[in-house]
Amino acid sequence: MTGAPTVLVDGVPAAAVNALDRGLAYGDGLFRTIRIEGGRPLFWERHIVQLDEGCRRLGIPAVDPATLAAEGALLFAGGSDGVLKIVVTRGVGGRGYRPPETPAPTRVLARFPMPPPLMADGVRVRLCATRVAIQPATAGIKTLNRLDQVLARAEWSDAGIFEGLMRDTEGFVVGGTMSNLFLVHGHRLLTPVIDRAGIAGTMRGATMDAARASGVEVIEARLAPSALVQADEAFLTNSVIGAVPVSDLCGRALAAGPVARRLRRALAAAGEESRRAAPWPMR
Amino acid sequence: MTGAPTVLVDGVPAAAVNALDRGLAYGDGLFRTIRIEGGRPLFWERHIVQLDEGCRRLGIPAVDPATLAAEGALLFAGGSDGVLKIVVTRGVGGRGYRPPETPAPTRVLARFPMPPPLMADGVRVRLCATRVAIQPATAGIKTLNRLDQVLARAEWSDAGIFEGLMRDTEGFVVGGTMSNLFLVHGHRLLTPVIDRAGIAGTMRGATMDAARASGVEVIEARLAPSALVQADEAFLTNSVIGAVPVSDLCGRALAAGPVARRLRRALAAAGEESRRAAPWPMR
Repeated sequence: MTGAPTVLVDGVPAAAVNALDRGLAYGDGLFRTIRIEGGRPLFWERHIVQLDEGCRRLGIPAVDPATLAAEGALLFAGGSDGVLKIVVTRGVGGRGYRPPETPAPTRVLARFPMPPPLMADGVRVRLCATRVAIQPATAGIKTLNRLDQVLARAEWSDAGIFEGLMRDTEGFVVGGTMSNLFLVHGHRLLTPVIDRAGIAGTMRGATMDAARASGVEVIEARLAPSALVQADEAFLTNSVIGAVPVSDLCGRALAAGPVARRLRRALAAAGEESRRAAPWPMR
Repeated sequence: MTGAPTVLVDGVPAAAVNALDRGLAYGDGLFRTIRIEGGRPLFWERHIVQLDEGCRRLGIPAVDPATLAAEGALLFAGGSDGVLKIVVTRGVGGRGYRPPETPAPTRVLARFPMPPPLMADGVRVRLCATRVAIQPATAGIKTLNRLDQVLARAEWSDAGIFEGLMRDTEGFVVGGTMSNLFLVHGHRLLTPVIDRAGIAGTMRGATMDAARASGVEVIEARLAPSALVQADEAFLTNSVIGAVPVSDLCGRALAAGPVARRLRRALAAAGEESRRAAPWPMR
């Protein structure tokens, strides 16, 4: 299998979606990004739970997980590593915001190559000027409305900078453009609370579970930028990168400390466990 | 010509867009909705100026107006009435929020039937529970990130209610889900200021210009809901409906008063003037 993405639209190999799909018209839908190793997904069950939750909150009919599993297995039938992206929209609509009474969701599954591995000693992180809008109605879920993140990511082109942190319009730190942020303060783990803005990523949930299982206190809080300055360690999480230490937090040098290292190992183990237990491919 | 929409994607009759378009992936784009009478657009120049402004603010290369005019003319070659929707996205991208260095925008033009005319004595308007997010980075422009409006419009199904007013997350009135709001207080016209949320519609600009030209003072302000209660008259504007009086403003009966009537006539005249001056179709 090559790096070129392969796409299934509603289960059919296709390169295109209906031009009148509400996903395009309004960003009326959701997506997931899932790491695949050896043809098997990591944290599949968590992704399905979160996709269901997103559909429920937007009022989009849930997509059958067995269908998604069969289609994911088809895209990664070669047993390769890569990234599976799942997009679910409210489907084709006419003109006007009103959702159809009986929406027929569109699903797009696409295979992408695995990005190159990151520096083990950590990544550089900057602070973005673009803010995240506060919107409790969609906070936490990964909708197709991502212009805040696009505009923030457009702020820098230095390939040495891995991620940009975003504050909400009131100035509180929400996370990275494409990752969740964790700070180690003494023996405690701090992460922004995702009740008004931001995405409650799958790896964020797995990280909090792993931390609590190992006796580390986790606090979800509204973090002022001063919390960055006080951090002993920092790391970023998302489904593709796992947990990655931050070596340069907005100009401040940090070492990959013991808490981050321990959680990284625990997450790798949990990821591998989930991979072995994944419902696809069928064996 | 029938009511079925006809679609041009990048100038070619087509029903589909690339499944990896950033318009679908992130709502990374803009749209316009333009009223067409007898095959000619109303307020074409204003729409082009606002589309350009939106592209500039998102960092999307501007689309050649002559191309849009030629394609609009093709869709309405029969000389019919209807609605032209123009979507411009940042084009196809890989995975990841970062915009391509040299984006190749996608444009979708679609023809829709003209909606039925509204009651001349006014429309009913409700107050939505869903709030509009505050985001100065994209306030004013008509981006493809419209989930706030979709969720608000999903709140009611009573066909007798034409529109829902939305407040921002701080409680100030922003406008309707698909229209701008004007209130008449004595001899003055009030409308929400669009610096943090909302869309500065083409018809909103035309309305303010028409009001000022006829000696009516126009105030753009942060409007608390109490401003609704104090209004002598109210009307809604957008490019398809023009200016429509509100007869029931969140449960309060209002008559279509002299200010709204006068502006409605002025806007109809300005619309007709713009239609005759439109650069398409060529004659």
